[in-house]
Amino acid sequence: MISLTDIAGTAKPGTLYGIGVGPGDVRLLTLRAAALIQSVDIVGYFAKKGRQGNARKIVTPLLAAGQREIKFEYPVTDEIPADHPDYHDQIGSFYREMAATLEQNLKEGLSIGLLAEGDPFFYGSFMHMWRRLDDVVPVEVVPGVTGMSGCWTRANAPIAWGDDVLTVVPGTLDEERLKDRLASSDAVVIMKIGTNFAKVRRAVQAAGLAERAVYVERGTMSDERILPLNACEDVPGTYFSMVIIPGQGRRI
Amino acid sequence: MISLTDIAGTAKPGTLYGIGVGPGDVRLLTLRAAALIQSVDIVGYFAKKGRQGNARKIVTPLLAAGQREIKFEYPVTDEIPADHPDYHDQIGSFYREMAATLEQNLKEGLSIGLLAEGDPFFYGSFMHMWRRLDDVVPVEVVPGVTGMSGCWTRANAPIAWGDDVLTVVPGTLDEERLKDRLASSDAVVIMKIGTNFAKVRRAVQAAGLAERAVYVERGTMSDERILPLNACEDVPGTYFSMVIIPGQGRRI
Repeated sequence: MISLTDIAGTAKPGTLYGIGVGPGDVRLLTLRAAALIQSVDIVGYFAKKGRQGNARKIVTPLLAAGQREIKFEYPVTDEIPADHPDYHDQIGSFYREMAATLEQNLKEGLSIGLLAEGDPFFYGSFMHMWRRLDDVVPVEVVPGVTGMSGCWTRANAPIAWGDDVLTVVPGTLDEERLKDRLASSDAVVIMKIGTNFAKVRRAVQAAGLAERAVYVERGTMSDERILPLNACEDVPGTYFSMVIIPGQGRRI
Repeated sequence: MISLTDIAGTAKPGTLYGIGVGPGDVRLLTLRAAALIQSVDIVGYFAKKGRQGNARKIVTPLLAAGQREIKFEYPVTDEIPADHPDYHDQIGSFYREMAATLEQNLKEGLSIGLLAEGDPFFYGSFMHMWRRLDDVVPVEVVPGVTGMSGCWTRANAPIAWGDDVLTVVPGTLDEERLKDRLASSDAVVIMKIGTNFAKVRRAVQAAGLAERAVYVERGTMSDERILPLNACEDVPGTYFSMVIIPGQGRRI
């Protein structure tokens, strides 16, 4: 039987890999992602200040002792609204410095695997590095299982059937716009719940979709929580939470 | 270094696994999916009549000689419209018989891995088996990298930034509804292009999005084709084709 590592290949010198690490369970990394993490010179990842970082935590079982790592700590995450000039300034400097660090190491011939939760091209911070470095160094993006796939799987809720239209909405939208989006879709995933929980629930209720809505927190992780939105008594605020509204399209 | 197979685990007797095989490149299977394919008693898959089946083709490098397989051949695919009573009757009988075959083997204690292109709970035929068997036998669904993730990755087109709303629309919708959906979204993926190509292109043009639209055929497979929608001269009709319209949300 062929070994999974043999299929997946290894890292090339001087190349930046944007590696999707999937929704949380390490078994949901792709063969390519796992093999690259085990073969790059440096594993890089984002983290909230003073934390280990979720992506880094997910891949822990894959890392060998002595693996070289670089942690990039956000100067700010949700303490300031993303449309505030201070947020823009602080995150802008952080991204510029981070890109310079990556570029220097890559130009010295080292390979770097930059971890991204879910899929790197789907609301990923990796995209801000891709934007700066894609024309400068060799870059390979490794798609991943999205957080939302992990969540609807664990909720045992097939999301889109037949001709269902699926809308993915950030919970950061204002309430009226959220409600409009919900009302005009067959199936919905609401991401980035965090501190937006109460607003999101009101919008789902106003759109008449609360009966079908499922709240999923840390789907596929060991401490996941899944419950009907109507049964949520408190107001959770975890980063890794979503509301899933499955479609009702063609069943045969 | 830990072996990837050791992380991913093996199949349990009498269990049905709905296995997402990702967009096309075998390296984009998850560790869990690959290890299950190598350990189930029977690998099952859907196929168009007389064909090998795309999912089966994707996992070929993982299969050992002598692996037991069952091919389930659709009696009809796109020869009859999906809303025609004959389609419903023929596909309905096929699904019922298929579920009975699976159930019989599972109850004899065999484990079965039923392959699904992309993610099993995202427009997957597997869902029709899940619906019939989830309360009858143990079922585990293994999420996969969706076809659309594979396509936007290969098109080098990050799909959703910041507060972008992403809409996933089947190309089977009528032209007016398609156009409406396109006009009210930041980022769009149009699936199920197939014979709908001309209509889809007209809708994209009418919504003023043709400049940003990318046509991706068989993304991540060896014979993929990627080109700006405006540069498509002919009218392709492949099952594995999509139109990707990347969002333009917050760049920092």
